[in-house]
Formats: sequence, structure tokens, C-alpha cells
Amino acid sequence: MTIFSKIIKGDIPSYKIAENDQFYAFLDIFPMMEGHTLIVPKVEVDKFFDVPTEYLNAWLAFAKPIAAAIESVVPCNRVGISVMGLEVPHAHMHLIPINSADDMNFTRAKLKLEPSEFQAIQAKIIAQLPATL
Amino acid sequence: MTIFSKIIKGDIPSYKIAENDQFYAFLDIFPMMEGHTLIVPKVEVDKFFDVPTEYLNAWLAFAKPIAAAIESVVPCNRVGISVMGLEVPHAHMHLIPINSADDMNFTRAKLKLEPSEFQAIQAKIIAQLPATL
Repeated sequence: MTIFSKIIKGDIPSYKIAENDQFYAFLDIFPMMEGHTLIVPKVEVDKFFDVPTEYLNAWLAFAKPIAAAIESVVPCNRVGISVMGLEVPHAHMHLIPINSADDMNFTRAKLKLEPSEFQAIQAKIIAQLPATL
Repeated sequence: MTIFSKIIKGDIPSYKIAENDQFYAFLDIFPMMEGHTLIVPKVEVDKFFDVPTEYLNAWLAFAKPIAAAIESVVPCNRVGISVMGLEVPHAHMHLIPINSADDMNFTRAKLKLEPSEFQAIQAKIIAQLPATL
């Protein structure tokens, strides 16, 4: 089972942002920026484009209100998307509030946040989400 | 009219990869890697998540065979996705064959390719695409 499946199952704790029958969204604990969120499908597939079509067709609609919520609470130009998948063999999408291309440069050092800081940004983002996703 | 609308219209030449009624895909002329492709919706919207839902819901299905074609002709670990949109006010998605996170680090220098090199990779990618997208 991948680390993301363990997070979805609740065996590993996460700062959950949203969930539906297909996807689980939570704060990246190695964030590029505050509010950096991961979206993971509830199916274990390594490569993003190998994820079943019904997930791909629903993915961006699930991401949209989350991106809007992040953008409304984190000062930024907009929310960017990154999909790489070189480290965990379970497809995932990064939503990152950005002001410059360097904010999506994964070779730079990540932020270090305290649990209280993660909890604060988690609560702010969730407060901006619609009741159902 | 944005530079991407001019490309879609044919007023500015491009190394076209694929097209349907909603999207236009072409080689980025400032590539991070050989095969680096842009997908642009045929509607002028600045921010990615503001693009109408019918485009968002179809976007990844349009991208999937293009990513597979790129991956089959460019030596790489997989094809990554980047959406930033800080430079051109017309939403677009980068498909980039990657081997490391630095291959999606847009702060590094871009490749310089000759027209003949763009044409060669364009032809190779197109040859791997299904007849209709």
C-alpha cells in the first residue's frame, strides 16, 4: 500500500482539506508555499495519465473549488498545478499558490511549518470550500 | 487577442501537435526538454481554473494521448504537467518529459533548438498519436 493510500485510509494522519468518492486532498507536509495541497485519487496508479478515465475527467472539477479556496486565503498571483510523480508511485497533483516560477521549483528548499501553522491554514482553506465537492 | 489565440488562428506559425474543437497543442519554442508541449483551450481565459467547466472536464482526456506520444519518443521517466500562467494571460498547460524535478524548474535556462530539430520531434510525436483526438 502506498503512503498516500495509508493517508486516505487514515492509518497515517494528514491535514485533510476535502474528500469525495474519487479523491482525497490534504496539505503537503513539505510545502513549497503555505497552502500547498496534494490531490490523490482513491486508486493506486503510479503514472498520472494511467489513472482511469473517469478519474481524469473529474479531477480538475474536484480541484477547482480547492484552488479557489487556497487563492482566497493565501496571498498569491494564482494557484498553479504541478504533476511529477518521481517519488511516490501513486499519482498526485500539487496545487500551489504562486507569485513566481520559483514557487514551483521543486529543487529549492521546502518550507518548515509547525503543526499549529498547518492547522491554521487548513482551517482557513476549509472555511472557504462549498459544503459538498 | 492573445499570442496563443493568434497561434490557434494561424496568424503566428507553430509546431502543431494536435487539435480538436476545444484545444490546440503545439511545441513550446522555449522548451525545458525536447518534446515540451503546450495545450491551450480555444477560449481566451487568463486563469486556468476560470476556464469553462466543459473545457476543464475534457482537458486531461485530450492531454493523455499526447503525453503518451511524447513519452514514447523522448527518453524520460514520465511526462509531467505544469500550469503556471504568469506570463501569457491565456490559460495553458505544459506537458514536459521529465527525469528529475529540475526538468520542471522554469527558473533554469531553456533549451535552444533549431527549426529542423523542432520539426523532427514534432513529426515523431505526431506519428505516435491516434488518428482522432
